[in-house]
Amino acid sequence: MVRVLGIDPGLQRTGWGIIDLQDNRMRHVANGIVTSTQSLTLAERLDQLHTGLIEVIQTWSPDEAAVEETFVNKNPVSTLKLGQARGVALLAPARNGIPVTEYTPNAVKKTVVGAGHAAKQQVEMMVSTLLPGCEISGADAADALAVAICHAQHAGNRSLAASLSAKPTGYGRRYR
Amino acid sequence: MVRVLGIDPGLQRTGWGIIDLQDNRMRHVANGIVTSTQSLTLAERLDQLHTGLIEVIQTWSPDEAAVEETFVNKNPVSTLKLGQARGVALLAPARNGIPVTEYTPNAVKKTVVGAGHAAKQQVEMMVSTLLPGCEISGADAADALAVAICHAQHAGNRSLAASLSAKPTGYGRRYR
Repeated sequence: MVRVLGIDPGLQRTGWGIIDLQDNRMRHVANGIVTSTQSLTLAERLDQLHTGLIEVIQTWSPDEAAVEETFVNKNPVSTLKLGQARGVALLAPARNGIPVTEYTPNAVKKTVVGAGHAAKQQVEMMVSTLLPGCEISGADAADALAVAICHAQHAGNRSLAASLSAKPTGYGRRYR
Repeated sequence: MVRVLGIDPGLQRTGWGIIDLQDNRMRHVANGIVTSTQSLTLAERLDQLHTGLIEVIQTWSPDEAAVEETFVNKNPVSTLKLGQARGVALLAPARNGIPVTEYTPNAVKKTVVGAGHAAKQQVEMMVSTLLPGCEISGADAADALAVAICHAQHAGNRSLAASLSAKPTGYGRRYR
């Protein structure tokens, strides 16, 4: 079994979702949103996001993590803000020895919906269909689950290759 | 005495500098550069930067930290990269309960050189003059020391105000 943590970073709200992959079947485990308090300093807000993600990792012990590559915003101030949140989000699994893979937004949509330019609602609907019975905490959590699903499908392909070569790759532990 | 950590974040190289402020006199303590390995994944590189800064904090136990506000680059990809490194740099002191203050590049140059639009070499020269006997590890470390000096001068003013009001402000411990 491989347990995957998907993260959708944002300074205000960072979505997360956990799914299990066994024998190429996916199962929803948990999802949620970590928020930061707008009245605090930037450093304190980043600490809130990081602490929230570390708690998620300690509670659910994912084996691998996946984060969507960022749309480079036309507004450079927004890009910088998102970059800061993203750095902290990528760091949380890395600090725990969990390998992090990045996927382009198009790759995520193509895997989940079947089309690279799907609307946000389509993604959320397909996540619900692919993970029956899961209650999604909000749009950010749906996006986090979508990137976890994208990774699980790629991990399914990789795990077959890994079992044939049995050669550890990348950073830290890879499978349980 | 107040011990200040200045940080100049960058994905490739993050400069740091430590100075002590006592009775409005500054003394150089240490400076250096934390680097990340280009061949690693982004998450692993951010972990290297963060781990390096945590080591600096554990070795030198600063009371306060200062980081320069970022020039928003015209190249959004560079802005995103810098944002990610910056998030991780701001997080290191925040995780240790050390308050972080941000200063605009102009404020730093004005404090250190006396002019808001000073050249890089002028900043490095003035840092050497203000902190006699310090060996600067490179341009990034000089910038980190410059932001620490900027904060120390503001902290000198604040500490007088604090001793008058004796009211703790901000996040975590402020003075020893």
